[in-house]
Amino acid sequence: MTKLSGDKVRELDAKYNLHPWMKQKNMNALPVERAEGIYYWDYDGNKYYDMSSQLVNVNLGYGNKEIINAIKEQVERLPYIAPAYAEESKSRLAEELIKISPKNMRKVFFTCGGSDANESAINMARTVTGRTKIFSRYRSYHGSTLGSGNLSGDPRRFALENPAATGFIKFFDPYVYREYFNFSSDEEASNYYIAKLREQLTYEGPENVAAIIVESITGANGVIIPPDGYLQGIRKICDEFGIIMICDEVMAGFGRTGKMFAFENWGIEPDIIVFAKGVTCGYVQLGGVIVNERVAKHYEDTVFQYGLTYSGHPLGCAAGLASVKYYEDANILENVNKVGKVLGERLEEFKSKYKSVGDVRYIGLFSAVELVKNKGTKEPLVPYGRDPEGIIGKIISLLKSKGFSTFGRENTIIIAPPLIITEEELLEALKIFEEVLEVVDREYI
Amino acid sequence: MTKLSGDKVRELDAKYNLHPWMKQKNMNALPVERAEGIYYWDYDGNKYYDMSSQLVNVNLGYGNKEIINAIKEQVERLPYIAPAYAEESKSRLAEELIKISPKNMRKVFFTCGGSDANESAINMARTVTGRTKIFSRYRSYHGSTLGSGNLSGDPRRFALENPAATGFIKFFDPYVYREYFNFSSDEEASNYYIAKLREQLTYEGPENVAAIIVESITGANGVIIPPDGYLQGIRKICDEFGIIMICDEVMAGFGRTGKMFAFENWGIEPDIIVFAKGVTCGYVQLGGVIVNERVAKHYEDTVFQYGLTYSGHPLGCAAGLASVKYYEDANILENVNKVGKVLGERLEEFKSKYKSVGDVRYIGLFSAVELVKNKGTKEPLVPYGRDPEGIIGKIISLLKSKGFSTFGRENTIIIAPPLIITEEELLEALKIFEEVLEVVDREYI
Repeated sequence: MTKLSGDKVRELDAKYNLHPWMKQKNMNALPVERAEGIYYWDYDGNKYYDMSSQLVNVNLGYGNKEIINAIKEQVERLPYIAPAYAEESKSRLAEELIKISPKNMRKVFFTCGGSDANESAINMARTVTGRTKIFSRYRSYHGSTLGSGNLSGDPRRFALENPAATGFIKFFDPYVYREYFNFSSDEEASNYYIAKLREQLTYEGPENVAAIIVESITGANGVIIPPDGYLQGIRKICDEFGIIMICDEVMAGFGRTGKMFAFENWGIEPDIIVFAKGVTCGYVQLGGVIVNERVAKHYEDTVFQYGLTYSGHPLGCAAGLASVKYYEDANILENVNKVGKVLGERLEEFKSKYKSVGDVRYIGLFSAVELVKNKGTKEPLVPYGRDPEGIIGKIISLLKSKGFSTFGRENTIIIAPPLIITEEELLEALKIFEEVLEVVDREYI
Repeated sequence: MTKLSGDKVRELDAKYNLHPWMKQKNMNALPVERAEGIYYWDYDGNKYYDMSSQLVNVNLGYGNKEIINAIKEQVERLPYIAPAYAEESKSRLAEELIKISPKNMRKVFFTCGGSDANESAINMARTVTGRTKIFSRYRSYHGSTLGSGNLSGDPRRFALENPAATGFIKFFDPYVYREYFNFSSDEEASNYYIAKLREQLTYEGPENVAAIIVESITGANGVIIPPDGYLQGIRKICDEFGIIMICDEVMAGFGRTGKMFAFENWGIEPDIIVFAKGVTCGYVQLGGVIVNERVAKHYEDTVFQYGLTYSGHPLGCAAGLASVKYYEDANILENVNKVGKVLGERLEEFKSKYKSVGDVRYIGLFSAVELVKNKGTKEPLVPYGRDPEGIIGKIISLLKSKGFSTFGRENTIIIAPPLIITEEELLEALKIFEEVLEVVDREYI
């Protein structure tokens, strides 16, 4: 039961809370009162389709009874115990995660979220290999702590580059839509990107490289789906030079793409899987890494030099255990593939129909619409790294005012609803999206 | 209700979980089944006095109905919403934290725990001042992500120094017991430490220094309590050079010392307070920073370049709100001061009575017993940074086998029970401690 009015919640928020990634002046955050299924409601009773699953993490939607009950049981029995102890939910969730992982995966280390999970992955890669350099990509986002922020390639890392951390090297994403060349096939594209990566590694000295980390699918920066052959090519390079391959599955993991992990779409196995978000669908904070035989073995006789008060938090693990079981018991992947097919078809129609839609990228229920001023030249609706007139913000606000809640970055809009969405719900929501595309075509290009 | 046997929990744990700060071979973690008050139980029915409040975070003990009910209510209504929104528990907890903070404090930013809270504090200090260097101390611990780890001064940072992050400078703690000189008063000690800090700042260029960060009381590394005048001296230096003063109150905050924040014992106000642990007593993960007018004002017109999916997590904030109210409603500070007095008296007796007790340091219910081979020479029981025979581990195990659960670092043992402990419970537990001191005197020195 809420105790304050929406206005009061908003007023206290503006007065006392610092919000991420924005200026604080005239803060006017929407107060959210409750949520159910794929919807949330503000205090005026307005209903919103959560078409981004918040930050692509509320994969199973709101009000999931299994997760709620697991939390209630755990909080009564043992909400917390230090990481040094064994605890039932932590043991069982680790076992479940190994069960759903590729066959060479051995152990799990739990963190609070994606940032510190990526930090632990860097730490492991450097320790296991005895090397320092870490390769990551320009359009990826991996977190905002010093290490995970320096891994990231988007402008959100700039505040963490004064001074930048040492040993972080960036390479290009397989951003086929905006590549200098036009590729005629996935194979041609993959060959190009892998050749350039190999060339860059040669200059850096592959024997100095601890890890190559990729979001299996670049997420917030536009759902950039790698061409077939690309992740396989990275896997091959890593094997050749003893480099640890890290797949950041924080956003793309846990059913989002129609597979439990996104890398499964290309049949590869990383050495370290980084996870968060969908593991608990936001109900309790949780993140972590799943590591393979090579990494696990290293720590048999070597101290694992990393720790957090909340590592293996029982309440987080209880929520995670209920979530992971729900993905399986409710056949979530089946729904993702079925409804995802409809999503893809509708997005292709938008691309044909609207001048402002330059590209649509989709896999499962993970998609992005890339907006352009001109389809022929591909001139982006707003230039990279700045949007002085706040056009993308205006489009997001317009969508929200019509009940379609999502977020955008650069010139892309994310569509990634909870994985429990029905075909009917999706089609209703996309009607709103289409109304807004009409406005964009008319007013912004 | 648990579903597995203790043996099975232990077996799965050893097979699938990576544990922090240790080698993984022959992992044999104690499975914990349930907990209540200041006690927890293993699956064989053995009861343990939790004399370290786990990692000095379960300040209000286990089974607190107010916190449990707050979590249950929140998880039904709205367990999660993204940081961009306003949410009742987040608004109300931020307001409460500002109410209990010094008068110049303005806003709160919530993170998942202490590591990422310290990361956000570094980020803020560098951004607000436009400077890069951060001063921190050798015996402090601030976390294990790249930034918070490089802030830390104890050996747990070594894995994060390959390569080390840039701009982190260490100074000495006010470790009076082992100082080269013997001081005759707090004033003399403070004058010395502040003069040396000022000298070091001169060499580094105070105009290049963004922040000085201290654990108000150095925690895990031996409860090093600053002499009166020391924190006041740092405050004065920070004012003189426009340096941001950060007090890491992750371990010492929330009533541990008999004040809500430890720095209140010396009448100063930092610019940024870093908190975690006691804010929710471990029931849900939460951390954050409380910032003053100067910092808050900076972000009115400047983008705050930091963010986390779980920032301001509603479930964490609900647990925090219930906890903060409980500290006040149950007069926890009064109990800390009352029972803390008894703790101090008993520790002084131990120091007089046992050859192996070189020093005892205590404030409120935060204390450490420093073990030596020889009281005269102060030779530590184990040398700094290594304990080849695992003597401290053996002492901790012996304590635990008798039902006294705590942890130690270097040659100190922490005693920091839940703040709800009664005098009777404390005295019972300390009888066990004394039995073990007898063994230490007899067998280890």
